[in-house]
Amino acid sequence: MKVVGIIAEYNPFHKGHQFHLSRARELSGADYVIVVMSGNYVQRGTPAMFDKYTRAEAALRSGADLVLELPVPVATGSAEYFASGAVKMLADTGIVTDLCFGSECGSLMDLQKLADILAEEPEEYQILLRKYLKEGMSFPAARAHAVKDYAPDLASDLLDAPNNLLGLEYLKALKRLHSTILPHTIQREGNAYHDTTVTDGRSASASGIRDSLMKSQGVFTDRILQQLPFPELYKDYEGLSPVSENSFSLPLLQKLRALQDQPLEQYFGVSAELSNRIWNRLDEFSSFSGFTDLLKTRELTRTSVSRALLHVLLDVREYKPASVFRVLGFRKSSAILLKELSAHGNLPVITSLSQAGIPPKELYADHLYESVRSLLHGRPFQNEYRRKMLVI
Amino acid sequence: MKVVGIIAEYNPFHKGHQFHLSRARELSGADYVIVVMSGNYVQRGTPAMFDKYTRAEAALRSGADLVLELPVPVATGSAEYFASGAVKMLADTGIVTDLCFGSECGSLMDLQKLADILAEEPEEYQILLRKYLKEGMSFPAARAHAVKDYAPDLASDLLDAPNNLLGLEYLKALKRLHSTILPHTIQREGNAYHDTTVTDGRSASASGIRDSLMKSQGVFTDRILQQLPFPELYKDYEGLSPVSENSFSLPLLQKLRALQDQPLEQYFGVSAELSNRIWNRLDEFSSFSGFTDLLKTRELTRTSVSRALLHVLLDVREYKPASVFRVLGFRKSSAILLKELSAHGNLPVITSLSQAGIPPKELYADHLYESVRSLLHGRPFQNEYRRKMLVI
Repeated sequence: MKVVGIIAEYNPFHKGHQFHLSRARELSGADYVIVVMSGNYVQRGTPAMFDKYTRAEAALRSGADLVLELPVPVATGSAEYFASGAVKMLADTGIVTDLCFGSECGSLMDLQKLADILAEEPEEYQILLRKYLKEGMSFPAARAHAVKDYAPDLASDLLDAPNNLLGLEYLKALKRLHSTILPHTIQREGNAYHDTTVTDGRSASASGIRDSLMKSQGVFTDRILQQLPFPELYKDYEGLSPVSENSFSLPLLQKLRALQDQPLEQYFGVSAELSNRIWNRLDEFSSFSGFTDLLKTRELTRTSVSRALLHVLLDVREYKPASVFRVLGFRKSSAILLKELSAHGNLPVITSLSQAGIPPKELYADHLYESVRSLLHGRPFQNEYRRKMLVI
Repeated sequence: MKVVGIIAEYNPFHKGHQFHLSRARELSGADYVIVVMSGNYVQRGTPAMFDKYTRAEAALRSGADLVLELPVPVATGSAEYFASGAVKMLADTGIVTDLCFGSECGSLMDLQKLADILAEEPEEYQILLRKYLKEGMSFPAARAHAVKDYAPDLASDLLDAPNNLLGLEYLKALKRLHSTILPHTIQREGNAYHDTTVTDGRSASASGIRDSLMKSQGVFTDRILQQLPFPELYKDYEGLSPVSENSFSLPLLQKLRALQDQPLEQYFGVSAELSNRIWNRLDEFSSFSGFTDLLKTRELTRTSVSRALLHVLLDVREYKPASVFRVLGFRKSSAILLKELSAHGNLPVITSLSQAGIPPKELYADHLYESVRSLLHGRPFQNEYRRKMLVI
């Protein structure tokens, strides 16, 4: 049995994702597709615009056989933590044989070569890296220059693209785990991640779709709908303020006020320096995103700040890989996968939270998400304990 | 030196309060007026619609000589706690000679007589009370009937009016403290507390003014302005959503989600039964006021529920009387009062929070209030540590 794994956020699930899903199956010749997906919070250090069940359902309807949820510290970790936690989860299944990820370059050979250099750091490369660092370059710049000198045949912009970087981390993680999972990459079609426009006839990025929805204040225009494989999944969202980090401004501010002047290094991803900056600038807080902008520095990216603030808000103290397989949904026709997962996986399979005896603290992040959403959208609260796994 | 004390909320300070202030001075023949006033949270178990500095300033401009702040557990306690804490604060000053409070009945003799009965509970009264309780009456009803039988000359509706009830508690507190402070009462003019209309030519209640502002969405109509002695004090509020308990819906929900399923009896005013009701109904939370309505029962008034929820939100664990005199402001011409207070008072006088070394935890309630207000009104945050005492 061949099973291909996909690591995803699907925020929201668009036609580019649909294309990737079917290409992954073809390319790997897999019988089944398992997706490990972020839950209600994503890697940019923000809440997802669409709840995890909506996103999982879109994936299942588009051909995914099983969707597992990445735990919050993995889903909201830096690229290295994210990749490491997601790859470990796929490896822990015991049944995933292949991994297929999107990249800007589309060349597994190039990425593998680069990953080997970065993971092994050969002597010659190290000398180059140190030289450029001594010249005063930032680490990413010095690394790019050292790679260019060491392996001039590699495209020089490999390290400039976010999906290439994530792909490199997947490859490094596979290597670190001595995994037999076979990697594949698919060149991303359509707009680049940073291109936030939604254009007729081309695939938009998830980021472009989110930006369009922010601008339209939650109205799903025809252009947006064209990008979404199952538009009917979003009827609960139509015309309502999109969930964004700024929907969490007051909760974040309240949490910070409650902790005021305590050291925040106890939270995942918060340095002593950032903790000080937070307390020094707290009176200028005007929104989650505004505060993130205030705190970022040349050394500390906006995204790292956002992740750190999110970890304070959600009470995430440390990185922890998944300790269970949380099943968001599966295709009835692929129910065999769940049995295989129980038989071969390294972690217990959770299909019902109330039966699994998970304490409320573990579900705080989800309950906060649904609390904010219920007040923002004036809709009933969805209790995570009572949510049923999706069966398509 | 004669000093009259006034216990107040001034939410907002209106012309009826102005009248009470000058009548209190006349009636007591006092040289000075000291007001002990709620801070940013009030006795109904809600945030004040207007911040404490605005309210203190209106009182000072209207003739109060010194405004001291009641601590949160006193200001948001039941009538008994509120009265007890406020009267104790006046007694602790060592310089207050008189207390003047408003009441619906306007007769100190009647209130004093009733207070004596309720405080001493003579044998005959106790028998009557037990009889009516046995007949299945609620406690307030049984008490009213017992009083009527025991002292038929007292007006039977004395116990029906909220300011009479507070007045009774003031008198009981004075007695309990063996205080020499001389009480006076002034009949409240204008609309009753429960009459929430603002009518031309008559004094509106603070509650009526607040309701009008909620209806006008923060627009100060001429009718509202007519009731406010210094309309210019409200320019920061003009046209902005009034601060209400529902401005605190998300913070309350977040706090409850963070505590989920833990017993809440550790908070002031929360019974085991209410704690259970909170957890059983939490998924139905739609707003602070909506949740209060959901939780109230025949035995547990809406106000007790609101106070209890506020105590959970603000982390108020127990009733504590004032341990300091927190000065909100004073009249320059009455600066002597501050010296007298330092010389004769039982508690330290705090005129600067940063110098007094108060920890942030003690100011959490104020900082949360200003946090919510800053995001609601899009105005800069007011840091309580850096607020200057008002000097008029």
